[in-house]
Amino acid sequence: MDSRNGLGAPQETSDADIESFFESAPPLRDSFNVSRKVKEFIERNSRSFENGRSTRVVCVTSGGTTVPLEQRCVRFIDNFSSGHRGATSTEYFVKAGYAVIFLHRRGTCQPYCGSLPEDSLLDCFELTEDSTVQACPSHAEAVKRAIRNHHAAVEEGLLLKLPYTTIFEYLQILRVIAISMRSIGSCGMFYLAAAVSDFYVPWESMLETDPKILLEKADKALRKYKMHMVVANELSTRNEEVVVISSSDRIAVRREHQNEDVEKHLIDLLVERHAVYIEKSSTVALTGEVV
Amino acid sequence: MDSRNGLGAPQETSDADIESFFESAPPLRDSFNVSRKVKEFIERNSRSFENGRSTRVVCVTSGGTTVPLEQRCVRFIDNFSSGHRGATSTEYFVKAGYAVIFLHRRGTCQPYCGSLPEDSLLDCFELTEDSTVQACPSHAEAVKRAIRNHHAAVEEGLLLKLPYTTIFEYLQILRVIAISMRSIGSCGMFYLAAAVSDFYVPWESMLETDPKILLEKADKALRKYKMHMVVANELSTRNEEVVVISSSDRIAVRREHQNEDVEKHLIDLLVERHAVYIEKSSTVALTGEVV
Repeated sequence: MDSRNGLGAPQETSDADIESFFESAPPLRDSFNVSRKVKEFIERNSRSFENGRSTRVVCVTSGGTTVPLEQRCVRFIDNFSSGHRGATSTEYFVKAGYAVIFLHRRGTCQPYCGSLPEDSLLDCFELTEDSTVQACPSHAEAVKRAIRNHHAAVEEGLLLKLPYTTIFEYLQILRVIAISMRSIGSCGMFYLAAAVSDFYVPWESMLETDPKILLEKADKALRKYKMHMVVANELSTRNEEVVVISSSDRIAVRREHQNEDVEKHLIDLLVERHAVYIEKSSTVALTGEVV
Repeated sequence: MDSRNGLGAPQETSDADIESFFESAPPLRDSFNVSRKVKEFIERNSRSFENGRSTRVVCVTSGGTTVPLEQRCVRFIDNFSSGHRGATSTEYFVKAGYAVIFLHRRGTCQPYCGSLPEDSLLDCFELTEDSTVQACPSHAEAVKRAIRNHHAAVEEGLLLKLPYTTIFEYLQILRVIAISMRSIGSCGMFYLAAAVSDFYVPWESMLETDPKILLEKADKALRKYKMHMVVANELSTRNEEVVVISSSDRIAVRREHQNEDVEKHLIDLLVERHAVYIEKSSTVALTGEVV
């Protein structure tokens, strides 16, 4: 729906191009559950009647798509979209009696959240002395309205939220929805508000980064940027282990069990080293000694 | 701190490069307030004593940076980072008695939110019959812990959250913080967990998109993708006005006043057209007439 999608020279897309896109895409995680949820949602709503007619279903897409440049994706090309249009439109479709499949980019605007603070919903709530959660007075009305409308939509079974990040996930889930929507014919609508990339990088052509050169790069960064320490991690084990590199040593920091944050031990180490550093700096200041 | 930052061939950065980066950057919005907040935060904390020593201050950076490819930014190159490392580390620094300046990418992980559902905090709350907000039983403990720790950090004045999106904002705010941090010498620490792009596109070299060709492109999209309607909008007025283009007409849809969503009128129009379409489709089904 968004004219931004049309930027760039239009190219004809053949059936073979489409086939080749889906064949080259990485497998969709949890695809069985996504298909099941979509099918159930459409079936249930097409059986429910309101004002003498069956419920209409709209698929609203929302937010930008990412085009990964690496298989274990660190860098990608993105289309900006806050997701405001899709989230707000979802609210109005629900109000008009539609059942909405909200296919949205992870982390973008959510329906009924428009009048809440942008960054942390935690700012809207406080604990009373007896540990009861309550909405802060300044946000109370907006929070209550948001919770009421959101719960109503979910409880009436009128809102199915499905998240995606990459262009692969977006198109794969959209295809799943399109196949299920066939069963309701003209009672279905697609409202494509997502800002979709008009290109992609084929999955198998992407270069893997080499974990062997990690520590070497960390050593270089230490010298180049004149850091006291560099924390090196591999993408796949970044929540389990990091290596802290300084000019004098390399220390592997691991979490001790699955429910622990590796950051607990990492920050302990940094706080300890910082204290020693402050101590040494004040010795220099007092005696002029270079440490 | 993150080894991902070191990817790519290391190049020496001269003072002239740095100068030229800041000179070519778009002006930082709200820079006066950002500077004031940072200065006050550091001054207040450096004056407060705990266990016989002044409070230590750490600047934690978190999340990826975007490199805009257009001045009115629709497309950009991004570095992936959930912001988990920065957000979790912030919690442990606060626990260790540090005051934390949390310089984070908009929309990434926030401190104390790690154990809450990923997408919508609204899922954690419900309204009782007398319209009191309460945490859903399944999330109650996690929500209470999050609110308690978050409020404690904010109320003790130990957490200053500053958001950024682009590489320009990130480096401009980081410079503001670095200048203010000088006053506390070795008691300050920089913990740079953000995944920072190692390149940028100079602001003045970017091409503007031409609003005049918007409707022409929308017309093309309508035919190319065989849509029933295309909604065209300009980036700067997208929340005020859109044009709905079909094969038979162009309809400008505007909000009537500032507190209204343009989506209200847009969805009204689409729901109405959809009803006509369903009606026509069933006529076709009954009579075989082509409409």
